[in-house]
Amino acid sequence: MRRLDELAQDTDEPGKITRLFLSPAHKSAMRRVRAWMEEAGLEARCDDIGNVVGHLECASPEAPCFILGSHIDSVRDAGRYDGGFGVLSAIAIVEELRRTAVRLPFGLEVVAFGDEEGVRFPTTLSGSRALAGTFAKESLGVRDAEGVSLEEGLRRFGCDPSAIGAIAREARQVCGYLEPHIEQGPVLEERNLALGVVTAIAGATRFNVEVRGQAGHAGTVPMALRKDALAGAAAMISAVEEEARSAPEIVATVGTIAALPGAVNVIPGEVRFSVDLRSPADAARRRAVASIRARLHAIARERGLRLGIGSAFEAAATACDKTLMEALGTALSRKGHEDFRLPSGAGHDAMAMASLCPVVMLFLRCKGGISHNPAEAITVGDAQAALEVMLDFLTHYRPPCPGPGAGAATGSEGRGTGEARRR
Amino acid sequence: MRRLDELAQDTDEPGKITRLFLSPAHKSAMRRVRAWMEEAGLEARCDDIGNVVGHLECASPEAPCFILGSHIDSVRDAGRYDGGFGVLSAIAIVEELRRTAVRLPFGLEVVAFGDEEGVRFPTTLSGSRALAGTFAKESLGVRDAEGVSLEEGLRRFGCDPSAIGAIAREARQVCGYLEPHIEQGPVLEERNLALGVVTAIAGATRFNVEVRGQAGHAGTVPMALRKDALAGAAAMISAVEEEARSAPEIVATVGTIAALPGAVNVIPGEVRFSVDLRSPADAARRRAVASIRARLHAIARERGLRLGIGSAFEAAATACDKTLMEALGTALSRKGHEDFRLPSGAGHDAMAMASLCPVVMLFLRCKGGISHNPAEAITVGDAQAALEVMLDFLTHYRPPCPGPGAGAATGSEGRGTGEARRR
Repeated sequence: MRRLDELAQDTDEPGKITRLFLSPAHKSAMRRVRAWMEEAGLEARCDDIGNVVGHLECASPEAPCFILGSHIDSVRDAGRYDGGFGVLSAIAIVEELRRTAVRLPFGLEVVAFGDEEGVRFPTTLSGSRALAGTFAKESLGVRDAEGVSLEEGLRRFGCDPSAIGAIAREARQVCGYLEPHIEQGPVLEERNLALGVVTAIAGATRFNVEVRGQAGHAGTVPMALRKDALAGAAAMISAVEEEARSAPEIVATVGTIAALPGAVNVIPGEVRFSVDLRSPADAARRRAVASIRARLHAIARERGLRLGIGSAFEAAATACDKTLMEALGTALSRKGHEDFRLPSGAGHDAMAMASLCPVVMLFLRCKGGISHNPAEAITVGDAQAALEVMLDFLTHYRPPCPGPGAGAATGSEGRGTGEARRR
Repeated sequence: MRRLDELAQDTDEPGKITRLFLSPAHKSAMRRVRAWMEEAGLEARCDDIGNVVGHLECASPEAPCFILGSHIDSVRDAGRYDGGFGVLSAIAIVEELRRTAVRLPFGLEVVAFGDEEGVRFPTTLSGSRALAGTFAKESLGVRDAEGVSLEEGLRRFGCDPSAIGAIAREARQVCGYLEPHIEQGPVLEERNLALGVVTAIAGATRFNVEVRGQAGHAGTVPMALRKDALAGAAAMISAVEEEARSAPEIVATVGTIAALPGAVNVIPGEVRFSVDLRSPADAARRRAVASIRARLHAIARERGLRLGIGSAFEAAATACDKTLMEALGTALSRKGHEDFRLPSGAGHDAMAMASLCPVVMLFLRCKGGISHNPAEAITVGDAQAALEVMLDFLTHYRPPCPGPGAGAATGSEGRGTGEARRR
């Protein structure tokens, strides 16, 4: 907890926590994290995509590594736990292992990824993708708001973009990835639980909707002769909500809306709104999207409105590995917690890591479900519980098939989805 | 029709029709209209509130006057028929009366009001209110966007603000007011009718609604734990529409909406929207407003949202005079038209005139119900039909109680409402 407060001092905006990928604050946070890693006995280095990687050798150097990690970049005006908790709790675990002289049958690595929030550049997960071998070279050309390309940003930061390919691990070298993270949602708090095992990182569909009716005088057009785009949009927004409510694993959000011309005394002739739909189950998500599209078209037809649905952004869900979930769930039970499972609605580095190895995440209760905000909060007790569970998990966990080919052999849903994504 | 095209040349914005109260275009339009009035045989003058008034004496100078009129100011980028049609058709009637040597048993006046649209100053109907004796001196202090007060604007225009009080007519001097105007709505076109008799000018209630829920991550908050302000607002907008649809004489419009924070991936925590509700029947409007308020509160309660309803702007309806409606309806029938009655959802100078005398309006079909737009259009045939009906009306109409006290004695609904308004 003290280190999380210290890390919060590395900021690009004094008085707030803002730590953008490849910024001065990111550089100083990397230095700080690297020093803590070394202090814990890890062999630490910074790689060419801005990750800090700490390695702990095990008795048999041929054994694959288990990776613990999360990210140290942040959104603007962030809280102090999103990302940072995962990295610093992992370092604390290594310290505890050393203190108690426990030797694991696999190597251990702690990684502090640098680009999870995707705030500075129009790309994200660069660090975890590089490790997973799915970093796309074309993304070096993307530019930040000041016109600096990712490639140039990396160079200025002291990284060698041509060496990113060498960061990639082979599946046989990595037996699993565990990412501890604050929940960023209200479910654990609502259930009065400190911790939960993540089942999957939700897939998402996003699209924009444009409704066109006919603008008109608010006083002179009788209700029966109206083609009110906003009244139509209201019915559509209700349909989106209803569709999501009727399926247990779907959330849907209309986050933006604009009505034109936008005058108190004019019937709106045009409305635009966004739809964001997520689910840990891709099939359920696709069914809900199809049903919503059909309902929007029906509402438009019924009201004589024209409907335009923009092309959808789609991201598949990333399932967590069943064996790792079981092992983490058992650790929870052993430590006196409920083996509670929940999906993650937000994206995480685990999504990229799933291309490389089996992944799992441990969610930590956060106050009011708030994240990406200075009001982000966790309790010392919950943090302590997370450390105990992680330690228990690591000391009990045995990779199902250690040695070469281990990762490739698991055939978990998570890896399957990850592979599909890469293709 | 030719004159309407000529009048369209008086504009403050070249290439568009924009004729704001007390602007250079207003001045030149007044000159043009005054010349046409004089050409038609009216004794014409400009008064101290920017009206052009043309008077036609009748055989008995003691007889009260009947007033025909409308306005010659316009919105920005207006059409050429809103207002102008009423004034120029009235002048055409006087010409026709002279050509056919018809003498009416009452004096006739044509008034071109200057401030109906209320675009330049945050006040409206100054011209008709001055005539009706309801012009409020305090409104001389209101200022336009450049900080010019109405008083200063009048002076610069050549008017004497201290003389406005003298413009007021006495009820006994005026036996009625007829305002021909384009419908500004789609009802006549929908019914395939050229003309209609206005029953009342709708009263209005306007208020702003603020819905507060809880912002949250679009992916991490399950549907059951959401307090989505926009989903709530959508249900409320549907309730507003439903309420208006369920009553025959109500129209309701949500014209503006804003959702905060307004990001695709954030559940809206706050939504603001406007409600504009109109009806020719004040009691029906009040009932609908009460019912809508109750439904909005119920929706908010059900969803755990906080609801704020801003203080309402209220304007009572102005009923047209029954005797005048009957007389105008009979003229329609005599000329082979259906005696069709409809309310006006928009405001007109007739609202102010109703404080002085019985009023009625003749609505003219306009293309697509469009007004306040360059696309405003009427047909020559419809205009001709309107002139024939107006002429027939005037030659058959006999004030129910001519002479002193006539206006005061009618006790029409219109006047009653007007009086209530003045108080």
